[in-house]
Amino acid sequence: MAARAPEGGAERELTRRLAHFFATDDARVEIGIGDDGAVVRTSPRSVLVCDPVVEGVHFTRADPLSLVGRKVVNRNLSDLAAMGATPDYLLVSLLLPAWLTREGRRRLVEGIRHAAREAASAVVGGDVAATPGPLVVTVCALGTAPRRCLRRDGLRAGDRLHVTGPLGGSRLGRHLRFLPQLAAGRWLAGQPMVHAAIDVSDGLLLDLAAMLAASGGLGAELDAAAIPIAPAAVRAAKASGRTPLAHALTDGEDHELLFNVRGRLGRGGPLAGAARRPLGSVRAAPGIDLIDADGRRRRLAVEGYQHDV
Amino acid sequence: MAARAPEGGAERELTRRLAHFFATDDARVEIGIGDDGAVVRTSPRSVLVCDPVVEGVHFTRADPLSLVGRKVVNRNLSDLAAMGATPDYLLVSLLLPAWLTREGRRRLVEGIRHAAREAASAVVGGDVAATPGPLVVTVCALGTAPRRCLRRDGLRAGDRLHVTGPLGGSRLGRHLRFLPQLAAGRWLAGQPMVHAAIDVSDGLLLDLAAMLAASGGLGAELDAAAIPIAPAAVRAAKASGRTPLAHALTDGEDHELLFNVRGRLGRGGPLAGAARRPLGSVRAAPGIDLIDADGRRRRLAVEGYQHDV
Repeated sequence: MAARAPEGGAERELTRRLAHFFATDDARVEIGIGDDGAVVRTSPRSVLVCDPVVEGVHFTRADPLSLVGRKVVNRNLSDLAAMGATPDYLLVSLLLPAWLTREGRRRLVEGIRHAAREAASAVVGGDVAATPGPLVVTVCALGTAPRRCLRRDGLRAGDRLHVTGPLGGSRLGRHLRFLPQLAAGRWLAGQPMVHAAIDVSDGLLLDLAAMLAASGGLGAELDAAAIPIAPAAVRAAKASGRTPLAHALTDGEDHELLFNVRGRLGRGGPLAGAARRPLGSVRAAPGIDLIDADGRRRRLAVEGYQHDV
Repeated sequence: MAARAPEGGAERELTRRLAHFFATDDARVEIGIGDDGAVVRTSPRSVLVCDPVVEGVHFTRADPLSLVGRKVVNRNLSDLAAMGATPDYLLVSLLLPAWLTREGRRRLVEGIRHAAREAASAVVGGDVAATPGPLVVTVCALGTAPRRCLRRDGLRAGDRLHVTGPLGGSRLGRHLRFLPQLAAGRWLAGQPMVHAAIDVSDGLLLDLAAMLAASGGLGAELDAAAIPIAPAAVRAAKASGRTPLAHALTDGEDHELLFNVRGRLGRGGPLAGAARRPLGSVRAAPGIDLIDADGRRRRLAVEGYQHDV
């Protein structure tokens, strides 16, 4: 192993170009890309998140690179949304394989910049290096915390469960095109009857199980007829031979927010109609049951959480 | 490409264990690992950095994994040091290949935790995912900015150049074992005669060239006899057939701080004796010249900066 640093003239030249590309007129950014670190103004309480995308895991070489850039930013913004935070700054680490052309790289960073700007956030730093492995883009995001953050451990028996949008739609490309639920997250964090939220990234069942486990080993009942199903889930079901409901329960990367309501949900706000109707409720007895339209009850097995059910 | 999220039960279980492993009693950490994001108290001005290490680029599979963990943290802390910042929080993204055993993973995170604690900083979040490629560990660090940050674009003709420690020692394993110059960086940021600093990660010549370019296209003269040479550079030279000075000029990953002094360097502070002696000076004419013990002058070619010299 040569200890010779991997960053040669090419990476430096690229960093210089990226400094121009990601230049921001945000007055809170004192030093942006190009120095050893970025210097920014920060709120007294910040939310920090960090999520990568890896070629062959979160996308394939056939996916449009602008959408890959968009996805890695929005994965992170979705985590901020689930805390009720407002995005401020992004750091981007690019591990570039030899197959990636200059044009591909341009599309990738354009996707990153577009998604950052959509959320009024600025890319202020990061790193570029060559890699012998797959393309990896890692983003860290810093946001301003709301007065009261939405935690995943805030559920109580009797809470109703809601979700900000339809589920099961991430196949057929939506996993590259979802939008972070930032406005919903911020609004929910200000509602006194809402105590818990999670970004539905691993599938409704897994993420609900994570909330229930974090909240002290509670259980839940889901109303099959009330689970909002994405149109793409119906099309995905035709191809997979599974039901649209099965896709809505177990497919990941929808990036809607699953949240609780204890009492009456406040009026106004950015929630769509379906998000104001509960899809289930929390109970003391562990396990997740699905109640179908005929009132039949079925225990759902949750991958990785079988010991809880 | 399946849109099915890559994080299954195994990654969730690992995240739960990492939440315990990296638990902190830092009262400024409101929510640590385990939720969608970390919630922390932040200073009014923060410094943000982000740097990865990649198997096959920054380390090999034969390197001790505890040192790999230490290296990725210290790379980031070294960037904070070069701004004069004080580390507060770290985010860690782990991309784990199938070859990495549970024991190897344990050593890796122990190295990360050890280096974080050495700098009184806390790992508050991140992400774990499986990868088909090489082991990648990406760290983002957030620190408190000094009143006046050390920028790389602060050089002026006539400034003297200093470095915090000996160079050329990163081969023979030191590239895994260097220590971030945090105390020196903080002290330098408080010295009115110091205006610019850079983390020597790519080699003295490349990093000096970067400072000179950022400062408006200046040049420099280096005094060959005054460049502090690490003992390991002498051993490396025996193996490479190059001179110890050549290693000191071009080897990366020393992670000492190169800084300017305009006037008289203040007394006291954590600098070693050699760091108080200039190794060269900045001049208006571009290019970097090396002056040897006999007064002979030689123009140095800088990879990626040949157009500047």
